[in-house]
Amino acid sequence: MNVICLDLEGVLVPEIWIAFSNETGIAELKRTTRDEPDYNKLMHFRMDILRSHGLKLSDIQDVISNIRPLDGAKDFLDYLRSRYQVIILSDTFSEFASPLMKQLDWPTIFCNSLVIDKNGMLSDIRMRQENGKMKAVEALQSIGMNVFSAGDSYNDLAMIRKADHGCLFRAPENILAQNPDLPHCTEYEEFISIIGEAFA
Amino acid sequence: MNVICLDLEGVLVPEIWIAFSNETGIAELKRTTRDEPDYNKLMHFRMDILRSHGLKLSDIQDVISNIRPLDGAKDFLDYLRSRYQVIILSDTFSEFASPLMKQLDWPTIFCNSLVIDKNGMLSDIRMRQENGKMKAVEALQSIGMNVFSAGDSYNDLAMIRKADHGCLFRAPENILAQNPDLPHCTEYEEFISIIGEAFA
Repeated sequence: MNVICLDLEGVLVPEIWIAFSNETGIAELKRTTRDEPDYNKLMHFRMDILRSHGLKLSDIQDVISNIRPLDGAKDFLDYLRSRYQVIILSDTFSEFASPLMKQLDWPTIFCNSLVIDKNGMLSDIRMRQENGKMKAVEALQSIGMNVFSAGDSYNDLAMIRKADHGCLFRAPENILAQNPDLPHCTEYEEFISIIGEAFA
Repeated sequence: MNVICLDLEGVLVPEIWIAFSNETGIAELKRTTRDEPDYNKLMHFRMDILRSHGLKLSDIQDVISNIRPLDGAKDFLDYLRSRYQVIILSDTFSEFASPLMKQLDWPTIFCNSLVIDKNGMLSDIRMRQENGKMKAVEALQSIGMNVFSAGDSYNDLAMIRKADHGCLFRAPENILAQNPDLPHCTEYEEFISIIGEAFA
C-alpha cells in the first residue's frame, strides 16, 4: 500500500508564522529558528507576544482562517487523495493547522499540540516526539507501507531519506546544493509525475 | 495527539460483499469466513465467481459506487475529522474501498490491495501484513499517539484492546457476551460521547 507523507508549510500552505505576522502586522512574529535556534525558547517568545497583544487561541484561529492554501495545492492534494493515502507530517500545532485543514477538506495530519490555559491563551507547547517526521515514516514502513516523502526544509530531509521514495519541493538553494541526489520540483504537475513514477 | 482508528464495514458503510451480492443478484458472493474460514481460499472463490460473470475491477467499482455509507455515517465522520485525526483500518481492499472513500470525502484508510491482470480482472490479493489493524494501532502509539479504536467484529478486538481507549459499535450478541468489559454503543451520537469522554 502506497502512502505519501507531505510537509505542510511551503508545500500546501504558506509559512504560518510569516502569514500570521503579515495578517496581524506584528513584525516580531517573523522571528524564526534562524534567529533563535532553540525552538522551545522561540515558541515561548512567540506566546509572550501573542499574550501581550491579548490574542487568544480563538483570535489566532480566526486570523489563520484567512490564510489560503498555496495556489493549486487543494487540487494537487485532492488528486493524490483519490489515488493514494496521504498523511501530512508537520512540526506545527494541530490548533494552528486546523483552520487550514478545514480548507483542504480535513486530510490526516500528524503534528504537535498546544497547551491552552483557562482563559484561552497559549501557555505551553507539547511536542509529540523528537524527530517526529522521520519516526512517523519509519512507523508506516513497519506496518508494510511503501512511503513517498516530500518537503522543502532541513527538518524534512530525515523523513525524505528514510522513505522508500521522495523529493524536495520548492526547496531553497542551499538545501538543493547539499542534496543534489534528491529529485526536486517546483510545480505540482511535475510533483505528481515524480510520485507516479516512484509508485509505478 | 489523539487518533481514532475506525473499522469500515458495519461502522461507516454496509458489509461490502453482502451489499455487492444484493446489487448484482449473485447470491454465492454472500459466502463469508463463517462458511470458508481460510480467507485466501474464500477470496479466490469470490474472484472465480467474478471472473465467471465477466466482472472486471471497473465493473465492480461501478457497483460499489451505488452502495451508500450508513445513515448518519458521513456527518459522524465529518464531526470526528474536524476535532481529531481519523484513520480507517480495514481488511478490505483499497480498490473496493475507493468508491466509498470518495463518498466520505477521502478519509485516510489503511487496508489491503488486489492484483489486477492486464484484462482488468482480479487475479490475486495482497495482504499488507498479518493482524494489520492491531499492528497499525501499535505503530501509531510508538510515535506518541493516544489511540481510540472501534469496530464491530472479531477482527477488531485486538486493535480495540491494544488501543488506549476503545469501544464496540453495533456488535453482534456473541461478541458483546464475550467482551462485557468493553463499552458498546449503537448510535453515532453516543459513539461521539464515548470518544469525547475517553479523550477528555
